[in-house]
Amino acid sequence: MKIVVDAMGGDHAPAVVVEGAVLAAREFGVEIVLVGREEAIRRELARHNTAGLSLPIVPASEVIEMDDHVNAVRAKKDNSLSVGMRLIKEGQADAFMSAGNSGAVMAAALFGLGRIRGIDRPALASIFPASKTPAIFIDLGANTDPTPQNLVQFAMMGSVYAERILGLNQPRVAIVSNGEEPEKGNERVKAAYPLLQASGLNFIGNIEGKDIPQGLTDVIVTDGFTGNVIIKLTEGLVSFLARTLKESLTGSLRNKVGLGLMLPGLILMLPGMLFLLPTIQSLRKRVDYRELGAAPLLGVNGVVLIAHGRSDAQAIRGAIRSTIRAAEGRIVETIKSNIGAARPQASHGSPSAQA
Amino acid sequence: MKIVVDAMGGDHAPAVVVEGAVLAAREFGVEIVLVGREEAIRRELARHNTAGLSLPIVPASEVIEMDDHVNAVRAKKDNSLSVGMRLIKEGQADAFMSAGNSGAVMAAALFGLGRIRGIDRPALASIFPASKTPAIFIDLGANTDPTPQNLVQFAMMGSVYAERILGLNQPRVAIVSNGEEPEKGNERVKAAYPLLQASGLNFIGNIEGKDIPQGLTDVIVTDGFTGNVIIKLTEGLVSFLARTLKESLTGSLRNKVGLGLMLPGLILMLPGMLFLLPTIQSLRKRVDYRELGAAPLLGVNGVVLIAHGRSDAQAIRGAIRSTIRAAEGRIVETIKSNIGAARPQASHGSPSAQA
Repeated sequence: MKIVVDAMGGDHAPAVVVEGAVLAAREFGVEIVLVGREEAIRRELARHNTAGLSLPIVPASEVIEMDDHVNAVRAKKDNSLSVGMRLIKEGQADAFMSAGNSGAVMAAALFGLGRIRGIDRPALASIFPASKTPAIFIDLGANTDPTPQNLVQFAMMGSVYAERILGLNQPRVAIVSNGEEPEKGNERVKAAYPLLQASGLNFIGNIEGKDIPQGLTDVIVTDGFTGNVIIKLTEGLVSFLARTLKESLTGSLRNKVGLGLMLPGLILMLPGMLFLLPTIQSLRKRVDYRELGAAPLLGVNGVVLIAHGRSDAQAIRGAIRSTIRAAEGRIVETIKSNIGAARPQASHGSPSAQA
Repeated sequence: MKIVVDAMGGDHAPAVVVEGAVLAAREFGVEIVLVGREEAIRRELARHNTAGLSLPIVPASEVIEMDDHVNAVRAKKDNSLSVGMRLIKEGQADAFMSAGNSGAVMAAALFGLGRIRGIDRPALASIFPASKTPAIFIDLGANTDPTPQNLVQFAMMGSVYAERILGLNQPRVAIVSNGEEPEKGNERVKAAYPLLQASGLNFIGNIEGKDIPQGLTDVIVTDGFTGNVIIKLTEGLVSFLARTLKESLTGSLRNKVGLGLMLPGLILMLPGMLFLLPTIQSLRKRVDYRELGAAPLLGVNGVVLIAHGRSDAQAIRGAIRSTIRAAEGRIVETIKSNIGAARPQASHGSPSAQA
């Protein structure tokens, strides 16, 4: 297994990227190709013990900055993203991971690898962090205005990812809507509904916002605008609730317990607090991007994953682990072989499609 | 102050509606007109002490059920919604509240009261339940596919509601998007952005999902599809997190503490738990529909509020309180006088509009 990592991508590149790559190479025993400015990468590598690890460098002289326009991918010809994609395209490596500018990664993947035939728009998927049972969430934000047909392709790709990564058979697929009933939805969702019924996927219908954390489905399909809002709101709410909980714990001590009762109360509280704080932390961790690994860009003709720009070395290590899993899962080949099945043939209401 | 309440609306009507109306009449000292089946209402009233309260009945022989199509508003001519709206239209009462079928309430309001001139689509607003400082959230779900111009009108109406109900001067208005930068958004949001800049409102730009709980804005504008997903996801996540927290508290006891250590640990945990449980409850309560009162339908030519269908008597009481506040706040008159100001005059980039 050979993974290409964009050494120049992310807010703290190349230092944390190289550090995370060293951790991953040691822990997962894979070869990691670091693409980017050779001198800078070499300097970072020198700070770590890399004895016995396979961490070759492929030079790329230019860097796409986090705030660059996607056009920079074409303008800066020797950028680390495009050089990395070429290694995948030429079959020199199995998968690519970057914590860089996600718009630029998508553009570089489209230019460098192209789309899988039959997929009109690639989409970003991830594991939804706050659900009873893990579910694949697609699209995280690659397409703000997809067509109903695009949504059906997202559903198929998400279904493949759930099969290969979560090990599920015939994963249940639901589409985010403003009500459970089939007639609920905006125009896009209402048009996608019969197409999903006819898709051959295990489509179980609409899912409301309140049911997203309930584990009622294995694949959650939505447009990239709503998807981005859902994922970021989840992150924001968990932080907000954890903070509110901490504040009200200390607040209720101050308010409810009189000064005389304060000390014994505090002492008695301590063990409870010691149990509680790691619990709050683990909840935050659950939706923390560092724990989530990287999001696969499904629909491009190669295994490409995008990690959070704020990633630290541990997050890079986790993102590389996700990338190894995606490559091992043969996502691209499975999507290719599923395209025929998921292309909606007839329209509404054929009995077999509704079964 | 005279409030019309749809006695037949909601999952537990008329019993809980009449009970909530009795509570509200006693506590807030207003006259509450109960509209619906006279006999049924009379029977419920007889179960309460109504001495000294003003709770007249206006008969309506037909009932719109929770699962009726909105067409039922026209088909069942003598339904409680339409009869109630007529009382508002004729100036016989100040405001109307129903916990019934929200699509039917909107239809009855549109037929019975009409729109405010200059407002193309009414929208449902509420106070966002999980934010550092209270913010008005609009649209909760009345319009799944609004135009950019509709969104500007929602922004104006939300701004008026924030001024009148939260007592804010020049409330900050933001639109939900998939990134902070002005160029982020789906087609609808990108088209609305310059219109909002030119609207004369205190428009502060896009707000991301993760910032919605942060109290960065006073009015949160979005389409009714995304709005419904946001509100329901918030409700679902808070329940999920509260449950997870409870489970992991008991779980960590079981897992981390050996059997011998279990008993003293449990005893020491107890005070902590006693402090913790009300805190979790208060978080759940915060996003509980019973605490949120009712959502005003802004843009119709009269004060109309919709409460949750699952409302119990306490929730009906809270919904009537919201209705009284909305009527006192002279929402309709203020929206009328703000229409000129909020209608986008020129397009992008006039310096005064951007100031």
